[in-house]
Amino acid sequence: MRARELAAEYPTVTPSDSALDAARLLAAQGLPGLVVVDGEGRAVAVIPGSRLLRQIVPAHVREDPTLARVYDERHADRLCAGLADRTVADLLADERTPLPVVDHNATVMEIASVMAGARSPVVAVTDDERHPKEGVVLGVVTAARLLERLLPT
Amino acid sequence: MRARELAAEYPTVTPSDSALDAARLLAAQGLPGLVVVDGEGRAVAVIPGSRLLRQIVPAHVREDPTLARVYDERHADRLCAGLADRTVADLLADERTPLPVVDHNATVMEIASVMAGARSPVVAVTDDERHPKEGVVLGVVTAARLLERLLPT
Repeated sequence: MRARELAAEYPTVTPSDSALDAARLLAAQGLPGLVVVDGEGRAVAVIPGSRLLRQIVPAHVREDPTLARVYDERHADRLCAGLADRTVADLLADERTPLPVVDHNATVMEIASVMAGARSPVVAVTDDERHPKEGVVLGVVTAARLLERLLPT
Repeated sequence: MRARELAAEYPTVTPSDSALDAARLLAAQGLPGLVVVDGEGRAVAVIPGSRLLRQIVPAHVREDPTLARVYDERHADRLCAGLADRTVADLLADERTPLPVVDHNATVMEIASVMAGARSPVVAVTDDERHPKEGVVLGVVTAARLLERLLPT
């Protein structure tokens, strides 16, 4: 079994999309993370849901989590509304994690290795065996899907 | 809106459960991670799917991912079968991340802050406001669920 047989369709966003729309997509479809692709369909980044949430937590709360209790619903709403003024590209500014990408010929062990190394909930599968990161995204593999196909029955 | 209103039911595992059964649960239900509780229902750990996969990647492959290509299906099957000899407690041996737990009175901002800080796909909500980590788990909140309730419509 190779990556191309495991890759499933998955909604993507582009760097120019509204960050609020991207967050809504994740919420509405219960996605574990956002897969960001460029205009040619090449993978740009994967943003796990937890990292997206980091964007709505103000820096001073990140440093002192006890401050979070003072944020009532009204405050929180206003912070989320701030996503409307930003794009997905803005969310990538502090991105430092390796891009979780494999080519369509990758083995399950390669996918597991990339997913674990990037601590990513999804790995993108591309069509370029020589330069996987430059290929077009064919689909994604989640940890649940990989285990579903891999575990002895 | 407080954590108790956001907490949803979620399957849990205990440290003495078989690691293979736990991986099967994650695969069958498409869970973003395993929530581990002790015999009294207190949170012990959250294991994201990507970290679970790390357990089936041999150490030498983690160090040199190019070795992963040589693992054909037969090899991979054997590695997964190795999960059958281990318990969930064994998976926790290299656990170093903060426990993503909040009490039932936590605000959405607190949940977001804990989830982002622990880089966890789920946060457990417990019944003990004074010592959240010692309380019984009432349910969990995912990033998608938090955003669903938080985003302006």
